Amino acid sequence: MPAQKLRNTTKEKLHEIIFEADTPAGKAFDVALLVAIVASVLVVILESVKEYQEQYGDFLYILEWIFTIFFTIEYILRLYSVYKPLKYSTSFFGIIDLLAILPTYLSLFISGTQTLLVIRILRLLRVFRIFKLGHFLIEGDVILRSLKASRAKITVFLFFILLMVTIIGSVMYIVEGGQENSGFTSIPRSIYWAIVTLTTVGYGDITPTTEIGQLLSALVMILGYAVLAVPTGIVSAEMIKTAKKTTTQACRYCGKDGHDDDAMHCKYCGQKLHPG
Amino acid sequence: MPAQKLRNTTKEKLHEIIFEADTPAGKAFDVALLVAIVASVLVVILESVKEYQEQYGDFLYILEWIFTIFFTIEYILRLYSVYKPLKYSTSFFGIIDLLAILPTYLSLFISGTQTLLVIRILRLLRVFRIFKLGHFLIEGDVILRSLKASRAKITVFLFFILLMVTIIGSVMYIVEGGQENSGFTSIPRSIYWAIVTLTTVGYGDITPTTEIGQLLSALVMILGYAVLAVPTGIVSAEMIKTAKKTTTQACRYCGKDGHDDDAMHCKYCGQKLHPG
Amino acid sequence: MPAQKLRNTTKEKLHEIIFEADTPAGKAFDVALLVAIVASVLVVILESVKEYQEQYGDFLYILEWIFTIFFTIEYILRLYSVYKPLKYSTSFFGIIDLLAILPTYLSLFISGTQTLLVIRILRLLRVFRIFKLGHFLIEGDVILRSLKASRAKITVFLFFILLMVTIIGSVMYIVEGGQENSGFTSIPRSIYWAIVTLTTVGYGDITPTTEIGQLLSALVMILGYAVLAVPTGIVSAEMIKTAKKTTTQACRYCGKDGHDDDAMHCKYCGQKLHPG
Amino acid sequence: MPAQKLRNTTKEKLHEIIFEADTPAGKAFDVALLVAIVASVLVVILESVKEYQEQYGDFLYILEWIFTIFFTIEYILRLYSVYKPLKYSTSFFGIIDLLAILPTYLSLFISGTQTLLVIRILRLLRVFRIFKLGHFLIEGDVILRSLKASRAKITVFLFFILLMVTIIGSVMYIVEGGQENSGFTSIPRSIYWAIVTLTTVGYGDITPTTEIGQLLSALVMILGYAVLAVPTGIVSAEMIKTAKKTTTQACRYCGKDGHDDDAMHCKYCGQKLHPG
Repeated sequence: MPAQKLRNTTKEKLHEIIFEADTPAGKAFDVALLVAIVASVLVVILESVKEYQEQYGDFLYILEWIFTIFFTIEYILRLYSVYKPLKYSTSFFGIIDLLAILPTYLSLFISGTQTLLVIRILRLLRVFRIFKLGHFLIEGDVILRSLKASRAKITVFLFFILLMVTIIGSVMYIVEGGQENSGFTSIPRSIYWAIVTLTTVGYGDITPTTEIGQLLSALVMILGYAVLAVPTGIVSAEMIKTAKKTTTQACRYCGKDGHDDDAMHCKYCGQKLHPG
Repeated sequence: MPAQKLRNTTKEKLHEIIFEADTPAGKAFDVALLVAIVASVLVVILESVKEYQEQYGDFLYILEWIFTIFFTIEYILRLYSVYKPLKYSTSFFGIIDLLAILPTYLSLFISGTQTLLVIRILRLLRVFRIFKLGHFLIEGDVILRSLKASRAKITVFLFFILLMVTIIGSVMYIVEGGQENSGFTSIPRSIYWAIVTLTTVGYGDITPTTEIGQLLSALVMILGYAVLAVPTGIVSAEMIKTAKKTTTQACRYCGKDGHDDDAMHCKYCGQKLHPG
Repeated sequence: MPAQKLRNTTKEKLHEIIFEADTPAGKAFDVALLVAIVASVLVVILESVKEYQEQYGDFLYILEWIFTIFFTIEYILRLYSVYKPLKYSTSFFGIIDLLAILPTYLSLFISGTQTLLVIRILRLLRVFRIFKLGHFLIEGDVILRSLKASRAKITVFLFFILLMVTIIGSVMYIVEGGQENSGFTSIPRSIYWAIVTLTTVGYGDITPTTEIGQLLSALVMILGYAVLAVPTGIVSAEMIKTAKKTTTQACRYCGKDGHDDDAMHCKYCGQKLHPG
Repeated sequence: MPAQKLRNTTKEKLHEIIFEADTPAGKAFDVALLVAIVASVLVVILESVKEYQEQYGDFLYILEWIFTIFFTIEYILRLYSVYKPLKYSTSFFGIIDLLAILPTYLSLFISGTQTLLVIRILRLLRVFRIFKLGHFLIEGDVILRSLKASRAKITVFLFFILLMVTIIGSVMYIVEGGQENSGFTSIPRSIYWAIVTLTTVGYGDITPTTEIGQLLSALVMILGYAVLAVPTGIVSAEMIKTAKKTTTQACRYCGKDGHDDDAMHCKYCGQKLHPG
């Protein structure tokens, strides 16, 4: 504490405004930042639409630079006011903050890189912290924990899907490849078709034309039907398990949480959970 | 009660017929109303079909006005007979009842607004109350409660989807945008494509043509495959939790709960569950 | 029993062969019947393929009549040998058996009715009884019971879907209908599009072309994404509940089953389930 | 053991290298094998792409033969070093190993058979054993057990789907078949359409054009919507059941089970779960 008092008070103040959202100034800065992020992403999106580009091209170009300069100053101030600049600049948000300004400078040398600016949208993830949407964060956490817990199952599942689409794609290439005007012109394209079909996206840009090809496709679709049930089953089962765990309290002895609803003793240290 | 007796008996009678469905007259009115609603929506739908419009245009136009005048009279009578006109007119059904007649009058000034009359179909929601489909209402309630309980999770989920499709759309615009005859002509269209693909709708009006674009699409689809499992898992988990709550009554002797809906004796101690 | 002994023994024998599958003759007849059903359905399917029709048309036509005459004789014998002809002829299988022969005779008067013969395929449902696939029947029963138990929820759900697609279809007709070469030529077609989109089928025969139409479609798809989770959640929750009930025993006092795993007393009569 | 010591030590050594992954040599061989498998599959895939075929055709052809000869030698060494050659050669991996080399030799007599070499990709399944991904194997096992346990239900489900698509396809053929430029040219094609629609793949290569056809399609889609929920429900319910079984260990003091994987103390009585 005394060490902090010795620090530059301007730096202190800056940190409070930029990194925290508890003071009115801090909150105002964060809201302004969110608006700027959304506006700057909209500018990038509008620039890609031909009509807007033709009519308001110059205006949008200037706006893009204004936002970039604003975000650059903000990034420098963040680096200056933070206690551990290195830790910040290598953190998830630190990297995103840097990537959110680089493309504009890059576009001076390589044209077309401005589109990469949409990565700025990831900065919106700060919204949860700023508006104290803790409740939503917990819910997001339940989803993430469920997905994490199912990670091994989903990896195995994707590995099998990969083997499956390679073999299905190759078989369809053999069956349909020789046809005139066939979309199955190579194995990679046939694998692409297999993925489009198995996931039930079904663009229809490549479709089987021979009878045997259509029969095989039908089998693949029905297979995909059953296969589709697997990841849903995995995540559902995991979510039910995780949901049960969220209504719990921490042990008063060892401090660990994650106890079941009907637990009477801590499963880690064995002490009573509800004494008295 | 005495205050009510002093009221205009016509008003009383009208309220009974229009708002309640317990008397024969009230039930008859409600059934006639339902038939009129379905018929008037059919008229709007048929008017939009060119052949019918050409052949029966005048007839349908007259029908539309008859229904509108009927619903207008009904609306005025509702306002007149209800105890608290303001409360009714600002309630969900009050607003729907008004919106169900406005478009016809509006069409005198702005052509084409008649199509908005289909909003009348929402008046059918009264069907549950009229036919005392309480059982169905409870089921609908279980669905709604499950969705409500998952609201926070689904909001977080949609927020991530929004970030994802923006980034995916932009990347695909960079990869495919330069191609001739490409459908990825702007970032908004690419985002539209990303949503069409992630939700596995897959129209095929915009499809990748380059190899790298097809590879990225395949990744997006497989991602969508895993992502599709999340909302299903959320709602399933919630529905299982809600379903458990609706069938719970505790035994009066041993205090244990978890009995089935049709249970007459406690499954743990054998005592009657609903004595008397 | 003595009354049965007085009956014509030929009739008795016939019943045993045609209706039962316990004797070798009965089993042989049933297997021959299954083969005939599959073969006759294949004939109908092949007749619809132009190339086969041109080359083997006469042959297939003769086969169709042979099968029909065979099934007609079988139907008459069933009527003759069964104890209660009226009950059989109005049962599910009795009606299917009749519908399986009518189209051929009808085709003498109205051409094109032969295709209706595919209804014969429903006769295959007998396969479970013939091959004593009791295990599969129970599984099918679990599915059916789950669907039945979710019937009210699914009805409510479909009612809301109906309201939703009508309104979505009408809004899209207003937005897209005026466009040239638009697929949204009438409200019914727009409703068809809404169903194709909400169910994530996505043919792509009708697609939005305006920017506002694509934005609305994207919203509808994301809505469909969340909505898709509802019936899956309903059936999953029901199936988990039903699955729990299948591992149970009947009460020794009142004979009713469907008890939970942890039940110690019959929930219907209150007697002990595992005495001793 | 002594019997094994008498065996040829070269054979012993070979077995250790080829079949096991515990020694450095064994591990190195297995990793080299995995790389060779992936590389050889890539060669087959690249050969199917016209541009690569034209430019590097000869080079790829030579590579294909090098890989085939390498795998042939490996197969012979496996047969030589294994204790029971017959058991190996008729095992799953033994058959895959043989099928992975045959197509190249076959291509000397019948052209085009090289594409079948992609079956080599199934050899990758060894990856789990080689890298000791036991954890993943268990997860894969949970999936497989869930699918196995739901096998009867899924079979019944597929049988009903088969009956359904045949009848739906025939009805659509009657309704749409007569139209000009209709895609419903025969019952098999209509059945193909029914499967494409029910599974929500929706290519759009065949679509209804008449009003009654579109109405029927809409019904089929909504049906498919409800039907889609069934396999998901089956697998979810099974997965929840299986998941519960894998985390169950009873307490040695109070006998209660249902403890989490990471529990060290019984949550009911507080005693240690794994003493000693």
